[in-house]
Amino acid sequence: VIISELVDRSGTPAATIKFYVREGLLPAGERVGGNRTEYTEAHEHRLRLIRAMLEVGKLSIGSIGQVLAALDRPDAPIADTFEVAQRALARRAASDVSEPSARALDRIDALIDRAGWAAGCHDNVGRGIAAQAVDAFANAGYELPDSYLDGYADAAVRVATADLTAVGGLADPSDMAELMVVGTVLGDTLSLGLRRIAQAHVTSERLLS
Amino acid sequence: VIISELVDRSGTPAATIKFYVREGLLPAGERVGGNRTEYTEAHEHRLRLIRAMLEVGKLSIGSIGQVLAALDRPDAPIADTFEVAQRALARRAASDVSEPSARALDRIDALIDRAGWAAGCHDNVGRGIAAQAVDAFANAGYELPDSYLDGYADAAVRVATADLTAVGGLADPSDMAELMVVGTVLGDTLSLGLRRIAQAHVTSERLLS
Repeated sequence: VIISELVDRSGTPAATIKFYVREGLLPAGERVGGNRTEYTEAHEHRLRLIRAMLEVGKLSIGSIGQVLAALDRPDAPIADTFEVAQRALARRAASDVSEPSARALDRIDALIDRAGWAAGCHDNVGRGIAAQAVDAFANAGYELPDSYLDGYADAAVRVATADLTAVGGLADPSDMAELMVVGTVLGDTLSLGLRRIAQAHVTSERLLS
Repeated sequence: VIISELVDRSGTPAATIKFYVREGLLPAGERVGGNRTEYTEAHEHRLRLIRAMLEVGKLSIGSIGQVLAALDRPDAPIADTFEVAQRALARRAASDVSEPSARALDRIDALIDRAGWAAGCHDNVGRGIAAQAVDAFANAGYELPDSYLDGYADAAVRVATADLTAVGGLADPSDMAELMVVGTVLGDTLSLGLRRIAQAHVTSERLLS
């Protein structure tokens, strides 16, 4: 299709499409003589992905570029794609925040051991993010008890199991990689929304009991 | 204490402290003759709270103002404080995003009913946030199965139970309100970090099995 059709189908303005091509987020269309450039369904699909990461994931253009680069690596093992995507996404969560304290990192390491999680988890980017949250609670005057952390860890395994089950249900490796990335971004928003609703539910249950 | 001591104790520059006072985030200090203004531990405590919401919660100054106003309402019932805080915090998650589709809202309503959550949950601000995530998955080409949503809902109840147990363990109502607000912001970051680690754990388990 030509660019005006891509604009109609994707809902993305032509100037924005050209910006994404310049920034390397979107492959250039194919020149087919004269001023005509052809775009394919792959372009339309990628535009939807970019939009989801921008609007719901609140990622910067730079982070989206890193995530898409991870997606485009051919034949990367699933665990690698997850890790690259997680690191790119982590920049959003961690920007402007000071390094976590050694004490908070120790608490997350102890949690990983209590939960019986794989040894490689100690290198995961989420360790620093979780430790920053523990520090921020402490700075605000709350020392989180282990039971609180363990409740969150238990919930995290359930969410990750749902994530991996969804990814494992796909046949095509590039679809799997894409769902991993999209799911990592959008799953955070889904969790956040459902946590709010569940807080209302648990509050009303406790008021009644 | 005078302002230079408040700066030392809180790590917040004097110009920032004065900005917070002008914006209504922080009560003014007490004039005690001449140019001397006295600040108390309550100021120091509030500065720590503001910092946690800014740095880890990534809230705007406007949203922090709304959250603090909810905190400062005397004798508000717990469920009300939660709701006001949730709505102020929701502006962060929902900004720039289009309204959720009726179809996605129906799916979240069906999930609330399947989970057996309280009827009031249908009015919770998290419903729209979760529905936006469902729409974004669909726009990116993935129709989430009910089993995925139910796995997330199950995890959300566990997290909310940990939240309410922590709040219920406090004796002072103003501490409870504060933990609700701080916990709503910081708990999202804690969840996000632990979800990343749990994804690494579940991935390595599945690769071994």
